[in-house]
Parts: sequence; C-alpha cells; structure tokens
Amino acid sequence: MQLDNAQTIHELTRCSDQYEHALAQNNVDALDALFWQGPQTVRYGVGENLYGAAEIAAFRRNRAGGSPPRTVLRRTITPLGTEAGVVSLEFRRDGSTRTGRQMQTWINTPNGWKILAAHVSIMAEQPETERPTL
Amino acid sequence: MQLDNAQTIHELTRCSDQYEHALAQNNVDALDALFWQGPQTVRYGVGENLYGAAEIAAFRRNRAGGSPPRTVLRRTITPLGTEAGVVSLEFRRDGSTRTGRQMQTWINTPNGWKILAAHVSIMAEQPETERPTL
Repeated sequence: MQLDNAQTIHELTRCSDQYEHALAQNNVDALDALFWQGPQTVRYGVGENLYGAAEIAAFRRNRAGGSPPRTVLRRTITPLGTEAGVVSLEFRRDGSTRTGRQMQTWINTPNGWKILAAHVSIMAEQPETERPTL
Repeated sequence: MQLDNAQTIHELTRCSDQYEHALAQNNVDALDALFWQGPQTVRYGVGENLYGAAEIAAFRRNRAGGSPPRTVLRRTITPLGTEAGVVSLEFRRDGSTRTGRQMQTWINTPNGWKILAAHVSIMAEQPETERPTL
C-alpha cells in the first residue's frame, strides 16, 4: 500500500479544500454530498456522536449557523494507496485560543471521494502527561 | 470496496481487543507494535497532537501510569475491503461521567494490522446544536 501516492494526495487535497469551503458556507447539501451516504458512516463531532448518514444530515440541519468559522493550522494527508486516505488537520475557531482537530477517512467511490469516518474535537488544554483528563 | 467484509471485521475485532488490553496494562511496547512504525502515523490524543511513530512512542513513555482505566461503551468496525478498516468506539473512564471517543484507521501490512491514524477525545458536555463550543 503506497502511503505517499501522489495522485491520492492531489485528489484529497482538493476534497479537503472543498470540505472547508462547504463548511465555511454552511452548505449542508454540499457537506452531505462529501459524506458516504450509507449506514456505515460515523461522525464524532465536538459534542455529539452520530451513526449513519441520516443522523449526520439531521444534525447539520439542526445546527443553526453551521460550524463556527475556523482557520486550518496544519494539514496532513496520508494515502492508503489509491482507494482510501486519511486527512488530519488542526484548526482554530475564530475568537478561540484552543486547538481543534479533525480526522477524516475518505474512500474512492464511483461517485467520487467520500468521507466514511470523521472525528472532530477540541483538544484539552494540557497534555495527558501533565494532567489526566477525566 | 466491501464495507462489510467479514474477515476484516473479524481481524480488526481481535486487533481492537488487543489494543484495549495493552492500553489497560500500559504495555507500551505492545502499543507501539500496534502502530505503524513510520513518519506517516498521526495520533491526536485527548490533550496532544503527535506526528510520526517516534513522537507517539515518546509520549507513551512520558505518560506516568498510562491511560486512565476505561470501559468501552460502543464499538463500530468498518472494513475498507480487506486492506484497511476503521475502528470507532465510545468509552468512559473510571470515575468520570463524560464520554470519550476513539477512532483508529488500520492498515493490513505484511507484519499484521497497524494503526496509521488515531484520534482520541473527550466529548463536550453539550451538542453543538445547543451551545457552540469555542
């Protein structure tokens, strides 16, 4: 499995950019279209755990104003060959000093790249080596 | 890509069980061995962002007492065919009322299944539909 496949990096860079744009616009139809539309999709959000595309779509439609505006601080794209890849990024929401993290696993489908699993969180303020976070 | 491949589910179930056991024992060598030993590995922990197997291994050795004991509440295993898969789980740490989440993307290598990307977090206490978490 080629963990540095250039074509996958190229394609997922574009997908990740599209995702950030759709998120910033709160374009929920575009966000839905970037997720795998099946019961297998999992999204752990900052404050919710969602199973299946239907739950994820419903959540987006209940989130007034969408996701808070954010700036991507660092992004890493790791191909799993040509059929899948992981996009990991750190972000900061406008007006916050805390660091957020988003990790997405994408799959290459006949209808384009889709997010099969996503996890978004705000990092605890101290590393676990210094203070256990219960 | 078979999102329900039975063999992958079987193998990643065993891998995830091994991971939980190693974590509970704070067996850092076993935990290292379950991670892809390369610069591509990303681990977002509850309070730290780590890039590459070397940073992850160093973190484990600095975490006195290891990860707090925890109970897995719910686990979902999603094959990406036979070569990769995602393990998503919710957990609760002993003595805490909060819900943790762990998502891992595994790859099938000649040396067995390895974690290429992991994200662990403690969920915010309210969903983002109710209160934006800056």
